Amino acid sequence: MKTFINPPRKEWGAILARPVQNFEEIESRTGLIMDRVKSKGDQALFEFTERFDGVRLKSFEVTEREIEAAKQLVSTELKAAIQVAKSNIEQFHKAQKTSDLKVETMPGVNCYRRSVPIEKVGLYIPGGTAPLFSTVLMLGVPAGISGCKEVILCTPPDKSGSVNPAILYTADLVGIKRVFKVGGAQAIAAMCFGTESISRVDKIFGPGNQYVTMAKQLASRFGVAIDMPAGPSEVAVYADETAMPEFVAADLLSQAEHGVDSQVLLVASSEKILSAVRTEIQIQLSQLTRREIAQSALENSVALVLNIEEAVDLLNEYAPEHLILSVKAPWEIADQITNAGSVFIGNYTPESAGDYASGTNHTLPTNGFAKAYSGVSLDSFVKKITYQEITQSGLLKIGPVIEAMAAAERLDGHKNAVSIRLKSLNDV
Amino acid sequence: MKTFINPPRKEWGAILARPVQNFEEIESRTGLIMDRVKSKGDQALFEFTERFDGVRLKSFEVTEREIEAAKQLVSTELKAAIQVAKSNIEQFHKAQKTSDLKVETMPGVNCYRRSVPIEKVGLYIPGGTAPLFSTVLMLGVPAGISGCKEVILCTPPDKSGSVNPAILYTADLVGIKRVFKVGGAQAIAAMCFGTESISRVDKIFGPGNQYVTMAKQLASRFGVAIDMPAGPSEVAVYADETAMPEFVAADLLSQAEHGVDSQVLLVASSEKILSAVRTEIQIQLSQLTRREIAQSALENSVALVLNIEEAVDLLNEYAPEHLILSVKAPWEIADQITNAGSVFIGNYTPESAGDYASGTNHTLPTNGFAKAYSGVSLDSFVKKITYQEITQSGLLKIGPVIEAMAAAERLDGHKNAVSIRLKSLNDV
Repeated sequence: MKTFINPPRKEWGAILARPVQNFEEIESRTGLIMDRVKSKGDQALFEFTERFDGVRLKSFEVTEREIEAAKQLVSTELKAAIQVAKSNIEQFHKAQKTSDLKVETMPGVNCYRRSVPIEKVGLYIPGGTAPLFSTVLMLGVPAGISGCKEVILCTPPDKSGSVNPAILYTADLVGIKRVFKVGGAQAIAAMCFGTESISRVDKIFGPGNQYVTMAKQLASRFGVAIDMPAGPSEVAVYADETAMPEFVAADLLSQAEHGVDSQVLLVASSEKILSAVRTEIQIQLSQLTRREIAQSALENSVALVLNIEEAVDLLNEYAPEHLILSVKAPWEIADQITNAGSVFIGNYTPESAGDYASGTNHTLPTNGFAKAYSGVSLDSFVKKITYQEITQSGLLKIGPVIEAMAAAERLDGHKNAVSIRLKSLNDV
Repeated sequence: MKTFINPPRKEWGAILARPVQNFEEIESRTGLIMDRVKSKGDQALFEFTERFDGVRLKSFEVTEREIEAAKQLVSTELKAAIQVAKSNIEQFHKAQKTSDLKVETMPGVNCYRRSVPIEKVGLYIPGGTAPLFSTVLMLGVPAGISGCKEVILCTPPDKSGSVNPAILYTADLVGIKRVFKVGGAQAIAAMCFGTESISRVDKIFGPGNQYVTMAKQLASRFGVAIDMPAGPSEVAVYADETAMPEFVAADLLSQAEHGVDSQVLLVASSEKILSAVRTEIQIQLSQLTRREIAQSALENSVALVLNIEEAVDLLNEYAPEHLILSVKAPWEIADQITNAGSVFIGNYTPESAGDYASGTNHTLPTNGFAKAYSGVSLDSFVKKITYQEITQSGLLKIGPVIEAMAAAERLDGHKNAVSIRLKSLNDV
């Protein structure tokens, strides 16, 4: 970790800079994949799956039989754990339901707002070494609560043409009826344009590599919404003398093991804490299966010593996806945090609690987007449609206001839509 | 208007197709503008303002004196109208405040959610023939209610270097302290990267031409959020035998006058209604100042005759930005509408009511995005940060769940962050 002791504010920008990605090459490659899926449909999907996943499939949709087989393969202990996590996530997301709104802004002028589920949503679950069935919960549970009519899931097959059983078990548990063995940018393209097998969706959710992320960005140009732009996962830990160095080290390593591009930031109240955490990292690192990944990620990561006021300012400037507050009065600090995806309070709330099971959503804004974006929530699966109904007497009151404003914006037609009604009412 | 009587469903896609934009040329031109503002700052802004707006400015920020002068220039009648609209918009948006959430998902596992204002927001207000001070209300009012710390506004100057007085009056009325005379893609670039005069913001709002829209899309790659992707404005009117043809015609024309690319869709329950509306359009068209624009827009627009069930399905497939229901039982239809930005109920609720003064927001999803996006609301100006706090006894319960899931995802480090804490608790 690169270490900075009380760096001056003017250096913070450079210290906190996230790696800049070169979009151009990724964009052009992804664009070609998207174009091909758009024009060739399933045929393109079969070809890309053979090329990128190393398997020639005969069909994409996971069968009932495969799901039943998967259920047998998941251990009873894991099933129980997934069910507990599901219950917690359900409780927290059900509490996010909002009631319809009705406001009479003027006599006879009634404005309403209602939440309406997005009809068709597509969830993307990456394959690779870590089968992210937890993300199936994080996206599938709120999709179900929201009442989305059609929820499909795309995930890449392995070389034998199978999908990890825990992913299939979890998809079935949350009520996802259709799962397709397609991964990468081609999966996003399929959900964006539709193919013979996979229907077009209104919104695409889920994490993925740079190609998946780029494909989601390109999809939004074709009228398909996405959950949020995504970058590498991040954690910031703020530790004072009440922190437990071995816990802090474990939290930093749990982020570092995600990938070599993971972002890890430690803000310590003293050099003593910082040094104790470093020592613990060395001890724990050697025991990790993914220690090489974690080591690389740590080499690019940053540790600082700052006083409280500066620490809060720096954390708000960085806007971490995950923020762990291992400090004496964590809620006092939390109240001053304006930019973060999700905050973990105190010594006994590791990030992995939120990643899996506490109930909060783990799909969170990275790359500084926490300054403006929220994580995925029930809101992400609904639209809020507004309505207005004006009575005849209401229009007599508000009409002249609209006429004056439309005239000042030089939009005659807008004015006339009111004038013609007012005239008919006055003529009566 | 292109007319279709009971077209078969398989033709709907082609009938409803929105014009496809060629992004490539706009993207490369916009990219060059963004790059130049990023590297040259104010100097680039001065140059682009001279080139595109035809005026060489000495500074961008509108002065106190200019604002005072503008206040004198706005008529008392218009001021009163703007104040009524502001009050209605305030009432409806204040009602959108959400209370903080706290859910104990398991004993000792507490999850929270709070709304936190986005710190720095930038509003873009187009110039041109129609001075959109109404958009200043629609964006400035919720920004103020949300508690955003820094709200700036960019709008292009006219050839004399001035900004329309109604825009300045309204900005002042809603409490916007800093207004800059910069327009186009260069304004978006300035708010995205920051320059000597204009500070970088976290989120950019507001309508604009294709260059502004593209610049907003590019800005989102640099960590700046945007309100929503935008296309030409749209209205769909559903009219049955209880509709007033002259009102319907006025509503269609009020949309058509926006621009030659405006989208206008009429769904009628019978050929008789459709024909009566067409006749009224011809009568009213000749009286509009912007009749040439409206005429062009109408040439590309569509009128259909459909039965109720098909009408609802077609409207949901089109997902209009604005939907006017001039039908006998409008709420019955509204209850079946799943995709729309804002809905106008009955014969006395013209779209212009929502455009200006009813209280709903007029920044709405176009181009079919109503399938997945909401219009601008109080939510657009806040992030919802989640928090979790787990007690020691809570971790003893949820810890094994997290361990089992992390192990199954083959993420040792995630598991260890829990195990190390459980071990310390069990050792006590």
